[in-house]
Amino acid sequence: MGREAKATNVVWHATKVAREDRERLLGQRGVVLWFTGLPGSGKSTLANEVAHMLHQRGHLAYILDGDNIRHGLNKDLGFSPEDREENIRRIGEVANLFADAGVVAMTAFISPYRRDRDRVRNLVGDGRFIEIYVNCPVEVCERRDPKGMYAKAKRGEIPEFTGVSAPYEPPEDPEIELRTDLMSVEECAKKVVEYLEREGIIRPL
Amino acid sequence: MGREAKATNVVWHATKVAREDRERLLGQRGVVLWFTGLPGSGKSTLANEVAHMLHQRGHLAYILDGDNIRHGLNKDLGFSPEDREENIRRIGEVANLFADAGVVAMTAFISPYRRDRDRVRNLVGDGRFIEIYVNCPVEVCERRDPKGMYAKAKRGEIPEFTGVSAPYEPPEDPEIELRTDLMSVEECAKKVVEYLEREGIIRPL
Repeated sequence: MGREAKATNVVWHATKVAREDRERLLGQRGVVLWFTGLPGSGKSTLANEVAHMLHQRGHLAYILDGDNIRHGLNKDLGFSPEDREENIRRIGEVANLFADAGVVAMTAFISPYRRDRDRVRNLVGDGRFIEIYVNCPVEVCERRDPKGMYAKAKRGEIPEFTGVSAPYEPPEDPEIELRTDLMSVEECAKKVVEYLEREGIIRPL
Repeated sequence: MGREAKATNVVWHATKVAREDRERLLGQRGVVLWFTGLPGSGKSTLANEVAHMLHQRGHLAYILDGDNIRHGLNKDLGFSPEDREENIRRIGEVANLFADAGVVAMTAFISPYRRDRDRVRNLVGDGRFIEIYVNCPVEVCERRDPKGMYAKAKRGEIPEFTGVSAPYEPPEDPEIELRTDLMSVEECAKKVVEYLEREGIIRPL
């Protein structure tokens, strides 16, 4: 019997590692923390603080935000209604893969439309999709204006800017709501981490 | 001073967790293992076996393959030349995000074109992109034909089927090459794991 003929008899099959196995390894559940809110409301900052607190407790978290998505995976997308919808769809799909990997995936995008967010909720599934409404009055966001975007939008240089010339649809029943104008970033992040602990997503301290 | 005015003075800034921090937490380096080869060459099976071996050693790996990509992130893509290129581009971007998260990311796609694979190599960066040529003679792949695709392609039911009516460009200088017709899945997977250990990507046993 030749080498090739022999090889065709070899059982060519592998054991699969399941999500539960990865979760056991990491000591956490894979979930999606979906931060949504106006530009300047503090989504990215908050996600980074939560990631830091989780890391200090030995948990693996990863943030998808404008920095690593807009110039990478979604660099082919513009700002038309279709492209905005596709932007959120892809982010939802990738966040879902990270959750499947066992990671606490966080997304920090305005994601102004309820319909788009609810689609991601349906994809990820209840119990694994945690919508976090980063609630901050537009006046405060505008005063913060970390990237000078509100000023530009007011001058008419950015068409369809959420909070100025385009609508933001607040979540109707978010798992967590945070008023970032009334609490510090540490206080807000702590509330998220406490939620995760309460829900058994991370190990208790 | 009102609550709002007070809040605007709060330092709204967070510490960032870097890739190195996540890698230290996981005790491994985030890399992309890019399996490429003909249909039926054993890419998915091999990736699953490597994932299993890594998991048993306490490492976190995650596989991107047709099952979780084609009906999810890339469900809007067909099989035109442009769509095939976009398919690989997105997979490369997502694999790169997983590597950035500290995960051993594995991809199991035919990815027949050198140019597409080299683009991903440039994105991920040398030392983190490990191209694995799953080498198996087309006659053996055809005999295995796990999904009955070769039979269909031979009947002309699948146009541009790699190995039958479309070209496959083998890697010119892959980090690892495996003859899956001459070795068992365990032997092949072991070679991959040994490579990762030798390169300091995973912990030695």
